[in-house]
Amino acid sequence: MSGTWTFSGDTTLKKGRPAIALDVMGGDRAPLATLEGAVRWHQSSGLYATLVGDVALMKRGLLKAGANPDDWTLIDAPDVIGMADHPVQTIRSEPRASIRRCAELIKSGEAQALVSMGNTGAALAAGVLIVGRADGVERPGLAAMIPTHKEPALVIDVGANAEARPEHLRDFALMGTLYKQHQLGQSEPRVAVLSIGEESSKGSPLTLAAAKLLTATPLNFVGNIEPGGIFSGDADVIVCDGFTGNLFLKSIEATAEFAFSSLRSAVKQRPFTIPGLALMYPALRAVRSRTAYDQYGGVPLLGVNGIVIIGHGRSNALAVSNALDAAADAVGHDLVKKITEDMGNIAK
Amino acid sequence: MSGTWTFSGDTTLKKGRPAIALDVMGGDRAPLATLEGAVRWHQSSGLYATLVGDVALMKRGLLKAGANPDDWTLIDAPDVIGMADHPVQTIRSEPRASIRRCAELIKSGEAQALVSMGNTGAALAAGVLIVGRADGVERPGLAAMIPTHKEPALVIDVGANAEARPEHLRDFALMGTLYKQHQLGQSEPRVAVLSIGEESSKGSPLTLAAAKLLTATPLNFVGNIEPGGIFSGDADVIVCDGFTGNLFLKSIEATAEFAFSSLRSAVKQRPFTIPGLALMYPALRAVRSRTAYDQYGGVPLLGVNGIVIIGHGRSNALAVSNALDAAADAVGHDLVKKITEDMGNIAK
Repeated sequence: MSGTWTFSGDTTLKKGRPAIALDVMGGDRAPLATLEGAVRWHQSSGLYATLVGDVALMKRGLLKAGANPDDWTLIDAPDVIGMADHPVQTIRSEPRASIRRCAELIKSGEAQALVSMGNTGAALAAGVLIVGRADGVERPGLAAMIPTHKEPALVIDVGANAEARPEHLRDFALMGTLYKQHQLGQSEPRVAVLSIGEESSKGSPLTLAAAKLLTATPLNFVGNIEPGGIFSGDADVIVCDGFTGNLFLKSIEATAEFAFSSLRSAVKQRPFTIPGLALMYPALRAVRSRTAYDQYGGVPLLGVNGIVIIGHGRSNALAVSNALDAAADAVGHDLVKKITEDMGNIAK
Repeated sequence: MSGTWTFSGDTTLKKGRPAIALDVMGGDRAPLATLEGAVRWHQSSGLYATLVGDVALMKRGLLKAGANPDDWTLIDAPDVIGMADHPVQTIRSEPRASIRRCAELIKSGEAQALVSMGNTGAALAAGVLIVGRADGVERPGLAAMIPTHKEPALVIDVGANAEARPEHLRDFALMGTLYKQHQLGQSEPRVAVLSIGEESSKGSPLTLAAAKLLTATPLNFVGNIEPGGIFSGDADVIVCDGFTGNLFLKSIEATAEFAFSSLRSAVKQRPFTIPGLALMYPALRAVRSRTAYDQYGGVPLLGVNGIVIIGHGRSNALAVSNALDAAADAVGHDLVKKITEDMGNIAK
């Protein structure tokens, strides 16, 4: 998420600067990794995030990360929603939860974006229930970037809703297209439906009905796509229900991890191949970073009234910094307004 | 699929020998790869398959593979169902299609098993429509073996039906358990539902309802499983609807291919790493063969009135030979009778 950042939106906090609330308490390595990410991002962008969490912990963490706490806006919300908590219930019952405060800052106009590496369900609930749906959007969708042999592809929805109707897949296609166009500067992104066969007759009742709806839109719809086609770069925006997309994302991650760990143990069993592993390390690292989560920092929840970027629980400082970059880019491109306008224009 | 092969079933063809019909015309490399596979299997097992296809082609191919055509039973069915053909319609309208003849040989009692590397949809249609469902089975399921860090796991259904009801997932669990027990000699296989979260509250309406049903069975049900858990070896039999399973299977294949081809191109861009690749070749090959399709030869369609093994279209001779092994094993273990008996016993 490098590239030039040009700001064109409004903010109630500081003119000309994106106001991004960072959920400092969320994530397996929080609060240190989130704070280090914020400091790292500040060093590269010159921008500050609004830090939301336990103030005493945040002050100590900032000092440890080599920053001066007095330079940062700190908002006290010391509670953490853990992985075992029920997301929706906890968001409703825990006013001091850091992710809830972040969402409230957007709702009140004090922030335009939030970034969280915490409980994904809680971040989704905060986005949908507190930030709220954008006008004209029935179901927000979580959009992940997938590496391919060409440009990265955007897959939406990867888990905001377990179920979806055909119209939701059409809306995901529109929001994904707008994201690719405005955030990533791609003209006429090719849209496809994730399915188990490229033939238009193959798939589930949902994918068949969605394909029919998409044919009737002005979007650049190219038909069904299989996982192999995604990696070949045959489409730019791939739509599916959240169960399918989440399973696809987790299958990719798990297979890549399995392949690499199998390689390690195969090398161990063949000591004469160890020098090969050492020699190949740069190439392996390059492949790994292509398939790694931290390159994109986080995935945007598209279709809510603000920028919501949700990162992996295992995020390190680099991932947090990249997620803050993505959030600033989205604010700069006025993504929420563009989605709201275009969703209003499409014939329902 | 090595291991001891002990025959205990009946056959109308030759006492004490499994009668397996091989769809010689099916597959991207047919008929040569299928014939070479049959010859290879004969050399290792001493057994013959019934070869179904274009007789003139088969005679020439057998000679080319170093075998004497007179030693083999050849059945004329020269038509091939291509990838573009509609499976169900073609099975009904093409009496001379090789896969249809294979299924008819089971129906008439002349064969106990069939092996096909052709159009998967056509093989499924032949299995369900001509071989027919086993007593007590509403939906047959396609069962694939997935490599893990421990024993290979069986995932069912990977594509026999795009849709499923919770009862079908329960039936898949029972059939998968019987296959693991009788075919692979595993006692008390752990059963799990493929989902997008290990917590019992996570998933789709289908997975939630299936989990509830499975809790009430005597099966060794261990809850939900995610793709990462499958590779860790946390369950032995994993059930899902055919859309989900097929997508999972294709995602694994595509990711493994993407990782290996990315590695090749990363090495090419870094010439100093090339000696490393050469040194690591044995380890890479070991990993590749673990994730490759040909190791298991094919996937069984469980729940029909005979043994139906469906292989990958790209199968080579080794895969065909392994698929014939799997078919002979299943006949030897009297798998169809065991599934029919147990499906009848379970309270519906």
